[in-house]
Amino acid sequence: MTSAEPISFSQAFDLINPHLYTVEERIRAQAKAFDPAVEGYVSYVCGAGGKRLRPALALLAGGATGKITANHVDLAVIIELIHIATLVHDDIMDGAELRRDRTSPNAKWGNAITVLLGDVLFAHALKLSTNFTNSDICRRIADAASEVCSGEIIQTQRRFDLKLSTADYYRIIEMKTAALFSAACELGAFISEASPPVIGSLKTFGTKLGVAYQVYDDILDLAGSEEATGKTLGTDLRKGKFTLPVLFLLQSGKDPNTVRELLLREDDVDAELLAQMIGSAGAMDAAKEVAFRLVGEALAQLDPIRENKFARGLRAIAEHLRQLLEAI
Amino acid sequence: MTSAEPISFSQAFDLINPHLYTVEERIRAQAKAFDPAVEGYVSYVCGAGGKRLRPALALLAGGATGKITANHVDLAVIIELIHIATLVHDDIMDGAELRRDRTSPNAKWGNAITVLLGDVLFAHALKLSTNFTNSDICRRIADAASEVCSGEIIQTQRRFDLKLSTADYYRIIEMKTAALFSAACELGAFISEASPPVIGSLKTFGTKLGVAYQVYDDILDLAGSEEATGKTLGTDLRKGKFTLPVLFLLQSGKDPNTVRELLLREDDVDAELLAQMIGSAGAMDAAKEVAFRLVGEALAQLDPIRENKFARGLRAIAEHLRQLLEAI
Repeated sequence: MTSAEPISFSQAFDLINPHLYTVEERIRAQAKAFDPAVEGYVSYVCGAGGKRLRPALALLAGGATGKITANHVDLAVIIELIHIATLVHDDIMDGAELRRDRTSPNAKWGNAITVLLGDVLFAHALKLSTNFTNSDICRRIADAASEVCSGEIIQTQRRFDLKLSTADYYRIIEMKTAALFSAACELGAFISEASPPVIGSLKTFGTKLGVAYQVYDDILDLAGSEEATGKTLGTDLRKGKFTLPVLFLLQSGKDPNTVRELLLREDDVDAELLAQMIGSAGAMDAAKEVAFRLVGEALAQLDPIRENKFARGLRAIAEHLRQLLEAI
Repeated sequence: MTSAEPISFSQAFDLINPHLYTVEERIRAQAKAFDPAVEGYVSYVCGAGGKRLRPALALLAGGATGKITANHVDLAVIIELIHIATLVHDDIMDGAELRRDRTSPNAKWGNAITVLLGDVLFAHALKLSTNFTNSDICRRIADAASEVCSGEIIQTQRRFDLKLSTADYYRIIEMKTAALFSAACELGAFISEASPPVIGSLKTFGTKLGVAYQVYDDILDLAGSEEATGKTLGTDLRKGKFTLPVLFLLQSGKDPNTVRELLLREDDVDAELLAQMIGSAGAMDAAKEVAFRLVGEALAQLDPIRENKFARGLRAIAEHLRQLLEAI
């Protein structure tokens, strides 16, 4: 492999595999930091697995700008714990029964324990972040956590709101999803003592990638028939989350009254019909276009970064998202 | 007033009144740190008032061991914000409709927004704590927050558990209530650069006072008839929170089967009858004795502290609790 050759998504993960293994062990070991009565709950949610995309970004950003150190591993663990805490609380709000094919904490232990479990994970992650000697890191992590929650508040507040603009939508997903992507990349470079412009580029890379990732995820919820994908169509629609394809359908002006009436039906929503309308109005293609553009903008942020295998790993993660979008 | 003369509870608050005023303003001003869409929620819960007992302890502990500085005010604000965040989540778990005579956030906006509101307050408080140049302070605050949540988890887990021991009970309330009292007193002295033994004494003072305070609060829930106190009797009983008087009743061995059956009735609980049984078994007096003893142990921790008006303020707060106990 020459230095200029692109690498695949799984090759990107292979590059940091020993570090990711440590991250995984460390995440699972966190349960032991808690009171024995609490340990079992933490162990359950921390052992649920997941793509560990945010840890990978933190490690790759660290490697792209310097040497991957124990501090990068700490960062990866902390960011993933915050992500896990938000998932725990998401499941309460969504009344979800399953998370990653396992019974969700709220279905298992009820909402009361689950609210507290999210809190305790959150507090623990922020406690771990105080171990960084530079308090800027700790502040940035708390800031990102606050952004995630604020984004989720606004999303919840604007459910079933037909006046939601695309600008509102982008702001919400930049907060709720991109904030942790952005912090992972920015702080990965910060810990490597990269120059301020490089740190800034990686921060923007994380933001663009995070927004693109959420747009993709939102598109998936409306793409294809249930028979083909095996996934329930329109979960977001039932919750009143108007995502980019829906907003583009509204903007298209096609059958506005029908669309509005369909969108406000809550549990009775006809997701198949709306998905068809989104497709034929060109709203799905328009949403995909946005995601492609964002991936391109994310990749452009990496141009000033000195080329190495970890920088190629970051590219591979963005390119993988492009491939996922193409496959829809 | 000579230097040795004790002061009253309200005089203790008067001593730190200008600082408490700043704390109050700062708490209310926090809402502006959030996204405009989130500001209203934060403003509502931060403007709900409260005794501000934890801020008072932080300020008095600071004054008892040095000069009250802006850092003490910051500490007071942060600890109260964490307390507010836990109250917000408490209301969800309790399904409370009212908090300090105002509609509770969950009754006003639903559980989804309220979970997130607690989270965002929590993250914000921990973010503020990263402004301390000494990261030990930040770590200790995150630690206390984690303790509070862990204590609440264990309490929730042990609801309606007839095997709950008094040791379990003390551990739960030391975590869920005393952790913030303890952190307020300890860090107040730490910021004043008191000697390690003095910091340790104030930490223990806070812990003992916090536990005594919670025992008092738990006694109140079972004391007097509803007609006399105007409060609903046995709120804890209905939630399956077996507090010290209940545990002492169980230990007394009087009518064990009746008591057990009565305790497991949930919403149909006969609080009047249980309160009577608690009284006649001497369980109420025994619980009060524990609280008196804890107040005495708290006060003893102040003996090695050099006498000044703020140290007398700390004494006054403990003495006030003793008076409240006597008045039951």
